[in-house]
Amino acid sequence: MEAVEAARRLAPRLAARAARHDRDGTFPTEDFADLREAGLFGLMVPSELGGSGARFAEYTAVAGELARGNGATALVFNMHASVTGALGAVTEELADALGVSDEALVARDRLLAEAAAGSWYAVAMSERGAGARLSQLTTVYHRVDGGYHIKGAKTFCSGAGHADAYLVAARSAADQSVVSQFLVPASPDGLRVEPTWDSLGMRATASHDLHLDVTVPADRLLGGVEGLALVIAQLMPHWLVASYAAVYVGVARAAVDAAVEHLTARGLTSLPAVRARIGRADAAVAAAQLAVAEAARRVDEAPGDAETNRWVWRAKLLAGTTAAEVAASMLEAAGTSATRRGHPLERLYRDARCGSLHPATSDVCADWLGVAALGGDPDRDGSTPRW
Amino acid sequence: MEAVEAARRLAPRLAARAARHDRDGTFPTEDFADLREAGLFGLMVPSELGGSGARFAEYTAVAGELARGNGATALVFNMHASVTGALGAVTEELADALGVSDEALVARDRLLAEAAAGSWYAVAMSERGAGARLSQLTTVYHRVDGGYHIKGAKTFCSGAGHADAYLVAARSAADQSVVSQFLVPASPDGLRVEPTWDSLGMRATASHDLHLDVTVPADRLLGGVEGLALVIAQLMPHWLVASYAAVYVGVARAAVDAAVEHLTARGLTSLPAVRARIGRADAAVAAAQLAVAEAARRVDEAPGDAETNRWVWRAKLLAGTTAAEVAASMLEAAGTSATRRGHPLERLYRDARCGSLHPATSDVCADWLGVAALGGDPDRDGSTPRW
Amino acid sequence: MEAVEAARRLAPRLAARAARHDRDGTFPTEDFADLREAGLFGLMVPSELGGSGARFAEYTAVAGELARGNGATALVFNMHASVTGALGAVTEELADALGVSDEALVARDRLLAEAAAGSWYAVAMSERGAGARLSQLTTVYHRVDGGYHIKGAKTFCSGAGHADAYLVAARSAADQSVVSQFLVPASPDGLRVEPTWDSLGMRATASHDLHLDVTVPADRLLGGVEGLALVIAQLMPHWLVASYAAVYVGVARAAVDAAVEHLTARGLTSLPAVRARIGRADAAVAAAQLAVAEAARRVDEAPGDAETNRWVWRAKLLAGTTAAEVAASMLEAAGTSATRRGHPLERLYRDARCGSLHPATSDVCADWLGVAALGGDPDRDGSTPRW
Amino acid sequence: MEAVEAARRLAPRLAARAARHDRDGTFPTEDFADLREAGLFGLMVPSELGGSGARFAEYTAVAGELARGNGATALVFNMHASVTGALGAVTEELADALGVSDEALVARDRLLAEAAAGSWYAVAMSERGAGARLSQLTTVYHRVDGGYHIKGAKTFCSGAGHADAYLVAARSAADQSVVSQFLVPASPDGLRVEPTWDSLGMRATASHDLHLDVTVPADRLLGGVEGLALVIAQLMPHWLVASYAAVYVGVARAAVDAAVEHLTARGLTSLPAVRARIGRADAAVAAAQLAVAEAARRVDEAPGDAETNRWVWRAKLLAGTTAAEVAASMLEAAGTSATRRGHPLERLYRDARCGSLHPATSDVCADWLGVAALGGDPDRDGSTPRW
Repeated sequence: MEAVEAARRLAPRLAARAARHDRDGTFPTEDFADLREAGLFGLMVPSELGGSGARFAEYTAVAGELARGNGATALVFNMHASVTGALGAVTEELADALGVSDEALVARDRLLAEAAAGSWYAVAMSERGAGARLSQLTTVYHRVDGGYHIKGAKTFCSGAGHADAYLVAARSAADQSVVSQFLVPASPDGLRVEPTWDSLGMRATASHDLHLDVTVPADRLLGGVEGLALVIAQLMPHWLVASYAAVYVGVARAAVDAAVEHLTARGLTSLPAVRARIGRADAAVAAAQLAVAEAARRVDEAPGDAETNRWVWRAKLLAGTTAAEVAASMLEAAGTSATRRGHPLERLYRDARCGSLHPATSDVCADWLGVAALGGDPDRDGSTPRW
Repeated sequence: MEAVEAARRLAPRLAARAARHDRDGTFPTEDFADLREAGLFGLMVPSELGGSGARFAEYTAVAGELARGNGATALVFNMHASVTGALGAVTEELADALGVSDEALVARDRLLAEAAAGSWYAVAMSERGAGARLSQLTTVYHRVDGGYHIKGAKTFCSGAGHADAYLVAARSAADQSVVSQFLVPASPDGLRVEPTWDSLGMRATASHDLHLDVTVPADRLLGGVEGLALVIAQLMPHWLVASYAAVYVGVARAAVDAAVEHLTARGLTSLPAVRARIGRADAAVAAAQLAVAEAARRVDEAPGDAETNRWVWRAKLLAGTTAAEVAASMLEAAGTSATRRGHPLERLYRDARCGSLHPATSDVCADWLGVAALGGDPDRDGSTPRW
Repeated sequence: MEAVEAARRLAPRLAARAARHDRDGTFPTEDFADLREAGLFGLMVPSELGGSGARFAEYTAVAGELARGNGATALVFNMHASVTGALGAVTEELADALGVSDEALVARDRLLAEAAAGSWYAVAMSERGAGARLSQLTTVYHRVDGGYHIKGAKTFCSGAGHADAYLVAARSAADQSVVSQFLVPASPDGLRVEPTWDSLGMRATASHDLHLDVTVPADRLLGGVEGLALVIAQLMPHWLVASYAAVYVGVARAAVDAAVEHLTARGLTSLPAVRARIGRADAAVAAAQLAVAEAARRVDEAPGDAETNRWVWRAKLLAGTTAAEVAASMLEAAGTSATRRGHPLERLYRDARCGSLHPATSDVCADWLGVAALGGDPDRDGSTPRW
Repeated sequence: MEAVEAARRLAPRLAARAARHDRDGTFPTEDFADLREAGLFGLMVPSELGGSGARFAEYTAVAGELARGNGATALVFNMHASVTGALGAVTEELADALGVSDEALVARDRLLAEAAAGSWYAVAMSERGAGARLSQLTTVYHRVDGGYHIKGAKTFCSGAGHADAYLVAARSAADQSVVSQFLVPASPDGLRVEPTWDSLGMRATASHDLHLDVTVPADRLLGGVEGLALVIAQLMPHWLVASYAAVYVGVARAAVDAAVEHLTARGLTSLPAVRARIGRADAAVAAAQLAVAEAARRVDEAPGDAETNRWVWRAKLLAGTTAAEVAASMLEAAGTSATRRGHPLERLYRDARCGSLHPATSDVCADWLGVAALGGDPDRDGSTPRW
């Protein structure tokens, strides 16, 4: 697990910069230079294309270590890993079944190879009003000479203005029922970042709005076939859910680390109430981490299985609630002096609260898990639409 | 309860300014102009001196309403109410017993009358390293012609740079065992505000450091007798503890208000998980509010009684934990869109976390309550020193 | 509050018998002899009929004190208090509006006078399958010479086989839409107790099944008019909900009492974890008790108001959850030796769990409170039918 | 994992008998006949002695499956597994280091072989007043012709009156500082069971008092050398702690199973509050189970390591708190009808509460984990003595 080691080595550097980017809401450009240099952009790229060929389990371990340094950096990296991971996960069988041409696979391989060489990709999926539901998108595209023209606006685009390309979902102007995905290269023409991101936590993700009015070459249509967006979305719920879990376990652990350091420095380690808080937090974080590892292991072994999906939801639910509760308790253990801006616990308390809110939210995961345990089908019986 | 009505009327104005002061960490000067105009600076001043002659119960109701508008404003007002309330609570019998001269009582009355006329007072008690424990102070004073010279540095002085005078505790240079309190007038000479306050929550309190190197007239020594500081501190634990509770119940209620408004505006009121969160929060806040009212009632009827003190700790413990838990749950009910800076829930989530950390902290209150229930004496048997 | 004093005096006698009745599932006959002798059967009876003319607030205080002795006894007494309280609460105006005849009021007064003289009444409302919903009843009655014949089976009839009469709801054989209530005298003919009650907690309530095949005189039809059952049920939600709350606060307090006694006897009062548990329990119970008192005060002042109902649900929710959590924590504080049968905490842990399950359950209260806070109408919008 | 399969197969048979043994407080003799027949008494016996040679990880999986059937049976089996597991874990190196003779190893092997052939062993360690602390024992032994005479009284001896032999710790009459362990054969002479066990939960363990006044042959001294008791106790904290964890995860899972069955049978699976309870319970139980598996894995790989011990305490803490919380929530989900005696949830609610109380209690585990995370040594710095 060389990549995990690399992430662990980088974490203190990320941590050292975290307070500044949190304060200013700026993007951690140096963190991404470090990630590039460490070769982590190729983490999910098959080794024959120059990458590390990591599986999902290894990725979650990497994400957890990065998040222990800076959760925001890990969240942005998560998007790149999702894109490269999903592209890499399209097997030849699946490609055949979907009607993906050989040229499209060559194009796909080139994008992956570029990632391994140091490019990184962001995701521009959500829209105001539509959220992340593909069925509600208003961004449209139509064919033009040599490619496609895409027009619309995206929100919550982590890393906006900093990525080398953006995974964009859009609806065909010709046929409203067709939703396709494009990997749109960064370019001053046609892409405009509207700086809307100013959030309670995870402030360094630069999850701004992205306005598109841009033409891309034909080979930027993923799969080379229109209408594959939903298929891919359903193939990779783990990328959209379990990897959040990995990040928030890292955040929770960082909160325990910070409380231990704070209390040790102040000689407050013998207070019984403090020790009980640390002890219970330690156990809760350790359990959540095991749940993430178990979900990841199953994603690698049996992606999409009903039982795998349950583990993904368990991991998400446990990581989100644990991070919020642990960070709140650690701040209480550390006391008022830890609430000063710039103190790691002040930031982690805010960052940690965001985990339960990412989709699938904790309440939704609890509902789906309940439906599944009661013998129902979360896709059909859940009180919340899944996509 | 005219003052409570006034506070309720002002709350929306405070709320409208809260986001800006939170963002910039600026003091809510307009809020204090409103409080002055509404006559609230005289709330605790006896009516014969031009005030409202409120009792503690009425004060906690006022504080709760103000906090529903802006918790930070309520916290600063809390300090002024503490000073005027404690001064007003010194009865003639007590004054006699403490050896307070008639001149000192006249001086006291003048300070109270000035409050009723629109002056407001801050508290400069805590010091770095010493916290709020009088026994550890390093600020010193010595007699000079016509008064006292005071030199030292204070921290967590809410309203620093904005108050008309500061209640300062200092140690006699002549006799280290003597700690006295002065009401030091605001003045450009001898008082310097060091802007250190930059906190997770309650950002508008301007609780900066205050450096003193100042001479005050003799009549600014409270009680006219040196060495009364500890006596007063022990007389008014309710001011130091129960009034925090009142503020944080107001903050918790504001969080429920904000979630209801947010969910109603978005048409999300029929989600079962959301309704359960709101319902449980509603009950918890209502119970905490009753506990504050009960503590306040007993403070008025039997100040300092063992059972009164237990109610004060119960109120503090319940208000602190309820505010933090309710705000976290309301943010989860409202979802990601409520985490954007400027949204009331984003601020309230941060403000609410601070309640358990004010002294006596939630963990300390739990310990003292446990000691008392088990037949011990919290002053003697608690695992934490009380002052 | 003479009755409250009487209840406080009786509580230790109830407590001394509680273990035996819990073990054997027997009815606390001696407790009811004590209640009779103390005049508590007339608690809710107007003074002009020989009773104490207590209001609801006083009743909840009595119930809490009795429950501190034995929760099961308090639950059965609750049923008698509900019957006499509801009968006594029918004002002349209401009687007029409902078409209640003067003879019926005379009959009502006789039943109340008999209660004041020492009779006590149980409630036989619930049926298997129907629960407590009047709309689902299968017990039927028809007119016969000089009265009514009632036939059917009831369940969860607390005090079955011990009461002097039973409040029975039945449906008219002639008109299915008409539901009436009768006060059926205890008699060996026509009433048969089937001993079905064998429960986790509250084992001494003798809440057995009651089979009826009995003729009652005409004046046993409450109100003298058929079809009043639903009206009365809607008039007294506080009796069905808030009085449970009073009982479970008493149970919670008994658990704290028992833990304090246990720990003191074993010299374990200085363990920090134990003290924290006791302290947090103390605060939670105190807050729940205030909520019950507030609900009761409002029931007396503005019965049936929307805000009164909210307080009733808050009290029920807080009492039920607090009792269960506090008893579980107190048992953990006391340790294994307190799990031996016959130890008060062993029983209280089981008794306390039942509070959230009585209607309206904690989950239902949370839902209704959420609906109300979000501006809806719990009668119409709740996810659970109210009757 | 053939033994795990066998346990899974037996669980429904154990479950079918559980209600009766719980009600009557009788020992599940048929369960132990089933365990014998399935060969599970030899689970921890090396294969060269006729056993299965299972490692600790496999044992915890077996214990969890048995507990899903009946927690009490699993707890008693736990004692047998502890004795055989600890005996089997004494390596030749360790035996050498401790001065264990070859004859003693032969005797040890014979005891293990007898277990594989169908004998099972109980543990008689705790004493009234002393608890499980070896340093406080009052049971004494002295040498007699051909063996030892042991005299004293034990408490909490699970399986008393049913086992084939008892592991007894006693103090040398000749030298108070020497504590030794004997495997005392069941016999009508010299062993007397005093039926004291009548507990909230785990009622079928027959954990009665055992009075000893008995002579045993010399080869029944474990290790053949006096004074080894403490050494063995310190070698096997996992047996005393982690195996409890395995049992209570099984109990927690049984509670979820029972709630699902109950709710499905009553058609209540679509209530949102119920689904949320089931979903959250499902995730919590899954996480606790992972923690037990991780602790067990580390016990096998690095027994006694500081990090292994932390995992053991995490597993114990998580299993104990999860079992109690999950069972309480599942009972609330299922409602009043599940509180009737004989319903699985009624029993599981009581059984589940016992987990946190077994040593090391949840509060003690939290303290030790806190000490360890804060860089201290739980053996030295914990607020509770470890043995």
